[in-house]
Amino acid sequence: MKTRAAVAFGEKQLLEIVEVDLEGPKEGEVLVEIMATGICHTDAYTLDGFDSEGIFPSILGHEGAGIVREVGPGVSLVKPDDHVIPLYIPECGTCKMCTSGKTNLCERLRATQGKGVMPDGTSRFSYKGETIYHYMGCSTFSNFTVLPEIAVAKIDPKAPFDKACYVGCGVTTGIGAVLNTAKVEKGARVVVFGLGGIGLNVIQGAKMAGAKQIVGVDINNDKEEWGRKFGMTDFVNPGEVDDVLHHLYKLTDGGADYSFDATGNVDVMRQALECCHKGWGESVIIGVAPAGAEIATRPFQLVTGRVWKGTAFGGAKGRTDVPEIVKWYLDGKIQIDPMITHILSLDEINKGFDLMHEGKSIRSVVVY
Amino acid sequence: MKTRAAVAFGEKQLLEIVEVDLEGPKEGEVLVEIMATGICHTDAYTLDGFDSEGIFPSILGHEGAGIVREVGPGVSLVKPDDHVIPLYIPECGTCKMCTSGKTNLCERLRATQGKGVMPDGTSRFSYKGETIYHYMGCSTFSNFTVLPEIAVAKIDPKAPFDKACYVGCGVTTGIGAVLNTAKVEKGARVVVFGLGGIGLNVIQGAKMAGAKQIVGVDINNDKEEWGRKFGMTDFVNPGEVDDVLHHLYKLTDGGADYSFDATGNVDVMRQALECCHKGWGESVIIGVAPAGAEIATRPFQLVTGRVWKGTAFGGAKGRTDVPEIVKWYLDGKIQIDPMITHILSLDEINKGFDLMHEGKSIRSVVVY
Repeated sequence: MKTRAAVAFGEKQLLEIVEVDLEGPKEGEVLVEIMATGICHTDAYTLDGFDSEGIFPSILGHEGAGIVREVGPGVSLVKPDDHVIPLYIPECGTCKMCTSGKTNLCERLRATQGKGVMPDGTSRFSYKGETIYHYMGCSTFSNFTVLPEIAVAKIDPKAPFDKACYVGCGVTTGIGAVLNTAKVEKGARVVVFGLGGIGLNVIQGAKMAGAKQIVGVDINNDKEEWGRKFGMTDFVNPGEVDDVLHHLYKLTDGGADYSFDATGNVDVMRQALECCHKGWGESVIIGVAPAGAEIATRPFQLVTGRVWKGTAFGGAKGRTDVPEIVKWYLDGKIQIDPMITHILSLDEINKGFDLMHEGKSIRSVVVY
Repeated sequence: MKTRAAVAFGEKQLLEIVEVDLEGPKEGEVLVEIMATGICHTDAYTLDGFDSEGIFPSILGHEGAGIVREVGPGVSLVKPDDHVIPLYIPECGTCKMCTSGKTNLCERLRATQGKGVMPDGTSRFSYKGETIYHYMGCSTFSNFTVLPEIAVAKIDPKAPFDKACYVGCGVTTGIGAVLNTAKVEKGARVVVFGLGGIGLNVIQGAKMAGAKQIVGVDINNDKEEWGRKFGMTDFVNPGEVDDVLHHLYKLTDGGADYSFDATGNVDVMRQALECCHKGWGESVIIGVAPAGAEIATRPFQLVTGRVWKGTAFGGAKGRTDVPEIVKWYLDGKIQIDPMITHILSLDEINKGFDLMHEGKSIRSVVVY
């Protein structure tokens, strides 16, 4: 079949909207009509050439929502007309990781997904006879895409696609970091570095968990209003205080019980660790750092009881947890609507990247 | 009163055995006759000038066992004739740290202890009218010493002093790192870097916890026999394999569930983290690194599920956990005897440091 898609022909190039060829689903695969997709920093990270393992030409996008239109042989988990969210971390339920009970990092598709191909080693996309690669196993910047059935989460069809798509990455990553990875408890003091979309979702996750103090840290004062909308209790602009660590210790009565880095800056990651309370403070890295960048600290920080962790997709198991988070949205337990600041058509997708780079959007969503 | 003590008059000098003056216990303090003391790497670390906060002249030693001989006003936790182990991390039971339920790092004495003085801001030791400072709140290289009552653990008087003293640091640190900090569970795969006294205690802690694989890593092949005595199942000499990380991944079926650094080398700390299993492996730093040294890794290591922690005194609460560990020893649940490789008199204490520097001892103990 043919489908319209935004193709990344090479790094640092504008995406080109073209009709590509898409092969139908093979065994265990499903064809999904993507109805909406968010534009995430990770897409930009790859497009801008920061990902040393980026593959081109490819179809980016990993934060989508859509409808199953066709299933390949042997598919049992979903059926046509099911509403689904594509999962860049699948959940096979049977591999060592899935059965460990300790992680969401299903490894069933890892080897092929990292190479931009489906489990059989080939791509379903092509353009003028040339292979176009998949991206993060999702390629939601295509109106139609093919995914393994273990890489889609079936969601409540009442959820609007232009909101539900955000659960495919940002919402789940931020809220999941709080609830699954840090396991923030009631009454905790939380510090969040970086008040972009992820940071705001950390804030609403911390509020859900019952944190008594939620401090947002950002170099942009415009973010204060955004943070307060979702439950932030204190705002700190590191450029406006003498010593951000000292300031945070005072503000939190000795340090954060939990801190989160949602900036991707390794120096900020260090601050996030070191602002934690001696004895028990835990810091969770969410942001994606530039290739090769390293985090560092004195081991004394850990020996005196701080814990350094990270999270991918908020520690969420895709097929299990994503439908639940969509339900929280439908039940009004979490907010998504105010974060969707721009709705664009596929033809306007490059504008979405510009808005993000300029810090003008929380989330831009392309609606097909 | 007068007491014999090994005084460190300055860094990189031999300890001098002299008679020092000791003031009796003030309010809340106890006088303890030290019966035996281990010589620990941390004493050498300070004596050798690696501790930028080392204070001289002082009486080193922090791994002792003895008998309460006199108590100051208001003391209620111990009485004369009680057998005790001095605690370099006290347990007041009432400060923010003690009541948190999350850490053993009681902060009641922190400010004064770090300055080499008792809680009232003065030292009990002097020599020819000149102040001699306390060390880690213990100063067990003195036949008699004074400690706050919250800094001694009352132990079963059946425990021989020349073995019990080792619980005052090494045994508790190693076993506690496994049981309190990492909380190693039955069937886990454990990797231990550095098979000195701490490493061997990590091994016996891991065995107690029911680990199914305990890999010891050391550059000295002589340590293999030592490790196996306490439950090590595999030995790796990093100098004899091409790539120690690759070797450990293969040996442990993908990585350690728990790893421990007992070397104090920041490059080894990184290896310890990175040899952990993706998704859940936790690495615990036990070793003390040189002042200013930093640990580093790529944040990807944490984002993919590894956790970096540290421990001080094995996360053990002194007055609560130390008596319990002594009981484990008396009940035959843990071994100490084979680790005490040398018994020395106080006059031979400098030889004890030599043996340690030369790697010829697991633990040298001075018996008064």
